[in-house]
Amino acid sequence: MAILSDLGTEILVPACAIVGIVFSVVQWILVSRVKLSPERHSLSNSSKNGTAEYLIEEEEGLNDHSVVHKCAEIQNAISEGATSFLYTEYQYVGIFMVAFAILIFVFLGSVEGFSTKSQPCSYNKGEMCKPALANAIFSTISFLLGGLTSLLSGFLGMKIATYANARTTLEARKGVGKAFITAFRSGAVMGFLLAANGLLVLYIAINLFKIYYGDDWEGLFEAITGYGLGGSSIALFGRVGGGIYTKAADVGADLVGKVERGIPEDDPRNPAVIADNVGDNVGDIAGMGADLFGSYAESSCAALVVSSISSFGINHDMTAMFYPLIISSIGILVCLITTLFATDFFEIKAVKEIEPALKKQLIISTILMTAGIAFVSWIALPSSFTIFNFGSQKVVKNWQLFLCVGAGLWAGLIIGFVTEYYTSNTYSPVQDVADSCRTGAATNVIFGLALGYKSVIIPIFAIAVSIFVSFSFAAMYGIAVAALGMLSTIATGLAIDAYGPISDNAGGIAEMAGMSHRIRERTDALDAAGNTTAAIGKGFAIGSAALVSLALFGAFVSRAAISTVDVLTPKVFIGLLVGAMLPYWFSAMTMKSVGSAALKMVEEVRRQFNTIPGLMEGTAKPDYATCVKISTDASIKEMIPPGALVMLTPLIVGTLLGVETLAGVLAGSLVSGVQIAISASNTGGAWDNAKKYIEAGASEHAKTLGPKGSDPHKAAVIGDTIGDPLKDTSGPSLNILIKLMAVESLVFAPFFAAHGGLLFKIWN
Amino acid sequence: MAILSDLGTEILVPACAIVGIVFSVVQWILVSRVKLSPERHSLSNSSKNGTAEYLIEEEEGLNDHSVVHKCAEIQNAISEGATSFLYTEYQYVGIFMVAFAILIFVFLGSVEGFSTKSQPCSYNKGEMCKPALANAIFSTISFLLGGLTSLLSGFLGMKIATYANARTTLEARKGVGKAFITAFRSGAVMGFLLAANGLLVLYIAINLFKIYYGDDWEGLFEAITGYGLGGSSIALFGRVGGGIYTKAADVGADLVGKVERGIPEDDPRNPAVIADNVGDNVGDIAGMGADLFGSYAESSCAALVVSSISSFGINHDMTAMFYPLIISSIGILVCLITTLFATDFFEIKAVKEIEPALKKQLIISTILMTAGIAFVSWIALPSSFTIFNFGSQKVVKNWQLFLCVGAGLWAGLIIGFVTEYYTSNTYSPVQDVADSCRTGAATNVIFGLALGYKSVIIPIFAIAVSIFVSFSFAAMYGIAVAALGMLSTIATGLAIDAYGPISDNAGGIAEMAGMSHRIRERTDALDAAGNTTAAIGKGFAIGSAALVSLALFGAFVSRAAISTVDVLTPKVFIGLLVGAMLPYWFSAMTMKSVGSAALKMVEEVRRQFNTIPGLMEGTAKPDYATCVKISTDASIKEMIPPGALVMLTPLIVGTLLGVETLAGVLAGSLVSGVQIAISASNTGGAWDNAKKYIEAGASEHAKTLGPKGSDPHKAAVIGDTIGDPLKDTSGPSLNILIKLMAVESLVFAPFFAAHGGLLFKIWN
Repeated sequence: MAILSDLGTEILVPACAIVGIVFSVVQWILVSRVKLSPERHSLSNSSKNGTAEYLIEEEEGLNDHSVVHKCAEIQNAISEGATSFLYTEYQYVGIFMVAFAILIFVFLGSVEGFSTKSQPCSYNKGEMCKPALANAIFSTISFLLGGLTSLLSGFLGMKIATYANARTTLEARKGVGKAFITAFRSGAVMGFLLAANGLLVLYIAINLFKIYYGDDWEGLFEAITGYGLGGSSIALFGRVGGGIYTKAADVGADLVGKVERGIPEDDPRNPAVIADNVGDNVGDIAGMGADLFGSYAESSCAALVVSSISSFGINHDMTAMFYPLIISSIGILVCLITTLFATDFFEIKAVKEIEPALKKQLIISTILMTAGIAFVSWIALPSSFTIFNFGSQKVVKNWQLFLCVGAGLWAGLIIGFVTEYYTSNTYSPVQDVADSCRTGAATNVIFGLALGYKSVIIPIFAIAVSIFVSFSFAAMYGIAVAALGMLSTIATGLAIDAYGPISDNAGGIAEMAGMSHRIRERTDALDAAGNTTAAIGKGFAIGSAALVSLALFGAFVSRAAISTVDVLTPKVFIGLLVGAMLPYWFSAMTMKSVGSAALKMVEEVRRQFNTIPGLMEGTAKPDYATCVKISTDASIKEMIPPGALVMLTPLIVGTLLGVETLAGVLAGSLVSGVQIAISASNTGGAWDNAKKYIEAGASEHAKTLGPKGSDPHKAAVIGDTIGDPLKDTSGPSLNILIKLMAVESLVFAPFFAAHGGLLFKIWN
Repeated sequence: MAILSDLGTEILVPACAIVGIVFSVVQWILVSRVKLSPERHSLSNSSKNGTAEYLIEEEEGLNDHSVVHKCAEIQNAISEGATSFLYTEYQYVGIFMVAFAILIFVFLGSVEGFSTKSQPCSYNKGEMCKPALANAIFSTISFLLGGLTSLLSGFLGMKIATYANARTTLEARKGVGKAFITAFRSGAVMGFLLAANGLLVLYIAINLFKIYYGDDWEGLFEAITGYGLGGSSIALFGRVGGGIYTKAADVGADLVGKVERGIPEDDPRNPAVIADNVGDNVGDIAGMGADLFGSYAESSCAALVVSSISSFGINHDMTAMFYPLIISSIGILVCLITTLFATDFFEIKAVKEIEPALKKQLIISTILMTAGIAFVSWIALPSSFTIFNFGSQKVVKNWQLFLCVGAGLWAGLIIGFVTEYYTSNTYSPVQDVADSCRTGAATNVIFGLALGYKSVIIPIFAIAVSIFVSFSFAAMYGIAVAALGMLSTIATGLAIDAYGPISDNAGGIAEMAGMSHRIRERTDALDAAGNTTAAIGKGFAIGSAALVSLALFGAFVSRAAISTVDVLTPKVFIGLLVGAMLPYWFSAMTMKSVGSAALKMVEEVRRQFNTIPGLMEGTAKPDYATCVKISTDASIKEMIPPGALVMLTPLIVGTLLGVETLAGVLAGSLVSGVQIAISASNTGGAWDNAKKYIEAGASEHAKTLGPKGSDPHKAAVIGDTIGDPLKDTSGPSLNILIKLMAVESLVFAPFFAAHGGLLFKIWN
């Protein structure tokens, strides 16, 4: 038996979750100390009069009240746009959730014809398990719970981000260090809230479900998988809808503003500028948050479902059963300590210290977490146990599980650093791409695409090694805990990640509020570091998605009672081939959506420039709201076809062609999708930073390519625009594609196993 | 037993091959009737004086001897450049061939420690088979034979193409119909030579090997697989080297000529213009020929090797055993009749009849071939027989095999038409891409990439259905004959395909020889139709490559004595994941190579424009030879790393990680590579034709985007340039990647099965 008692586990997990929530509230309070204006204390109250004590220290324009007012006004517009978009999105998501909940109930209930009688367990044949109808009901409930938790996490993340952006701008007046801490703390609020919430809701759900399920752990953890499906469904809409929103606005704003009118980025005269800033919050913050929450929920569920039919579940060893949750609990504590390194233990004084500080976060959290995993594996696991391995039981030692989790954790760090190497303009790959702009946009695009393809190599090897290690040691359970290992530092990862769009918005607000060149230099420096960390975050999200979907795939296969997925059968092979095609189909839709929505935005922005007198001169205000509405409408409308592709494929394939073909589809889309996702997001990141490299002109080489407006710079802007949908829409959305299809298959596995494969039943 | 006697088969196969060769010689003679100048009769004699009777009919400038001289001169330069490149390439290829032949001998010989003793057969355990050493020797010989046949086919194709291009130009003076027939006949020479040669050499090799092997058919057809490996190795260098050559020259010529200097395509003042035209011949003709020859040889070998361990081989039923060769034989006859429809039965009188005439070729050959397959399946097969199916024998009927071959044939036609739909500017997809040029290059690229991704969907379904049908009916043998079905009309396919670059060159020569606008309009019309057929040909090549590599994969798995390739084992899964990454790695190399080589070309072209006085004014001649040399050197140097990746991966994986991981790698690279190949080549084709759509300005819509030099046109040119390496280098090279790795694994399978998986032997 494990050293940690069951009671200890029951206390440890919720305690860590609550510590995480308290910590994020403390961070929020610290951020809120930066006063925007007295009435901004309450978000609902929008009266704009009242005096303010603002900020005591003075460095530059600290007492310029009009600037503060302007910042508050802009922040308000961004926050309103983001909130209104999310509300609109949630209406559609709500309809979807209800419809899909009914679908889950009907499909899973029909497995045993809605019978209320208990049945023999699937794996532990000797015992009786709860009826399929119970599985239908509780899966539906956990689906809704997962969806709501994801919605809440995304929404709160967006709220804190739009709460913090103007505050970061104002803090930038006092120095880059203060601004950094504000942006980073706000990111941490999101990271900790999400990690802690996800853990706490899952923990509570398991304990509540246990009241009904009692000793039927097999049924209990089958039903819990709905939590992952709910989380990922929201992520689908968050990533796809948010991704289309943000890039339609960004591309539209750039094409008319920068290219046609020659006005700078974030210029307040550009009618699409508010929509662009809103996009950062709904796409990069809410979408990313939902994505990583989905990964977290899914890998936990995958681990739990395999665990429930392994010796942990069979022997009712609760502490060992909760091993995945304990890892996440310790992760919250580790991230808490790590955060203090950025905000309290050291202080940032110069621009060049920002990027190293963020990178140090990754390294510190990984090292601390390695010790944490070792500790958890020692206290929470028996020294030897068995894990379900596609029909048989495999003997596993506790140190082997430590290596599985560690393999995932360190693979994540490697992916992060490789991503940084290929997307940061301090290294030669991006500099080469920038250099190719000399001969125009075409060579820039060719070199950029080649860079993206090349950047896939090492991450794939890193993932392959961690898969091999964890798969060999502990079968699919090993993969699931490796994914959890990669995600165990999620709070820090998300903090770094959310920091990016917040800094980006802060720069936008500084520009729009007409603040001095010096302030903008500071926010630009924050933003540049944020660009690289955003790319790292995406690499992380993709890597974990790959592990998570493999774990889900394994859980699906176990639950569908398949013992081999043999490529040498036609059913599996055509699944593999078609599955590998799905990411292309999906990307075609999302890229085209961004393109079409951007064209609509371009027309509207042009119309405003042509019809509103005095707009270019800055004497008239543009109609921001119409642009926000265009992005909102387009993204809502355009997210439906790709969403339908992802949600319907497993249902159609499973029902008509059966579980073997579906297994092929899942494996095919996984191995193909991960490559496109990595290459798309690195290509986009590299183009973005190649452009920034030319604009900054920080080296002799960079100076020969610039300045802004030179032919190489124009070529670089074209590359950046092409990269936008690649890196922020189609690339990251593929994470969801591969994860969601896998978790959906897992949830519907009992139905497919019972009634699936209609076509082949006719054919044979 | 089959209706066709063994003797009948022994006569039918070589007879059809000889008919094919005779037919191609007749076509060559017909082409050679167009006199370029008296001394051009002999290619080696380059004296340029002597009078000529030229051409009797007169329409436009027919008696302008200076034009004829000029054409002859340009043709000479192109032919010399192409020949010199191929000779240089062949030196390297020769070294590679010798080295790899030694490798094959050593690896395969070592399986039984170079023992000369007979051994029990692998499948037919009761009988004795020839020693592994014999397999080593004969595999090496057939490898060299395959390589030489491929070299010869590519070389002859290039010769006839560079022989026909100026003749097409001159015929264009008499009308578009005459020019079309000249170009098409030249293409047919290549198509029939290649199909007939491939068949004949294979047939002779089998019969010669039989003298030694006698009744040991298992050993005989194992050794024959070397033929496919040899063919595909040459294709690797042809496709990759030729692809880099042609696009370095093309991109380099366009970037300086069209973009910087504003001179038209194929302008004789552009120093890279000859290199560009040479590239069409070495890339699109020699490379494409080697690629399809490789597919043909490989699918025959895959079918034969499976067949030899099925009832055909076990019962020594020669006619049934030769079923794959008989299909190809009938294919030659069918294509012969089909060709007459284009050259003799109908005459082309107007420009708009060209594209339909070429499309009709595909339809006619497919319909006739369907009847041919039915006939062959009836006379050459017993009504019922068994096929080896991964360890067991599966009962198959002759009509089922007819459906397998037919499924491949018709899938090819569907892929062809879908490719046409997505790349021809008569349909909405390309017109949409052209329309997106209004907002600049970035939207053009976004829409083009989305189009390519989307164009993957139907071809993948077509391939999946034909795989499912043929796999279900006749296991891996079914797949192999499905591939042969797709390739059975290869002579027509290649004729159409080679027609494209010949017309392209004809247009270039017209431009360079300063011929009238009217002549160029005619060659442009030929070229435009050729662009679409080139895309169709690429679609075809990719589709057949997918089927071929699956067949080879099946043969490899059979020969390595694996009975399942289970995705649920870590060895296979990491193979799948890494395999799916290889096409990206490979594409990164080839794209970067084109980019770097193009940059060198740009520098040289700029240097010449800047340093040669009177070049822009047309009073001085550029130094074409230096540009030819840059392309040659770059492509030779740059083809080594991607070549090494393809050739070494199976050897390293098989030796270190064993056959299961290798099987995973093959499946992964197949399902991932086919998608990138299709999307890359369609994206490129669409951009090319979107540009042509704007340039031609044939509709109201097109006119609003043009004319040449407008902003949308400039955006379209950027897209076209990006598409060049995608559609002509990295995309088509992926065919080779997936086929070659599979056939290499097949040839080395005995070694891997005996000594492979060293790492896992240490690990476990």
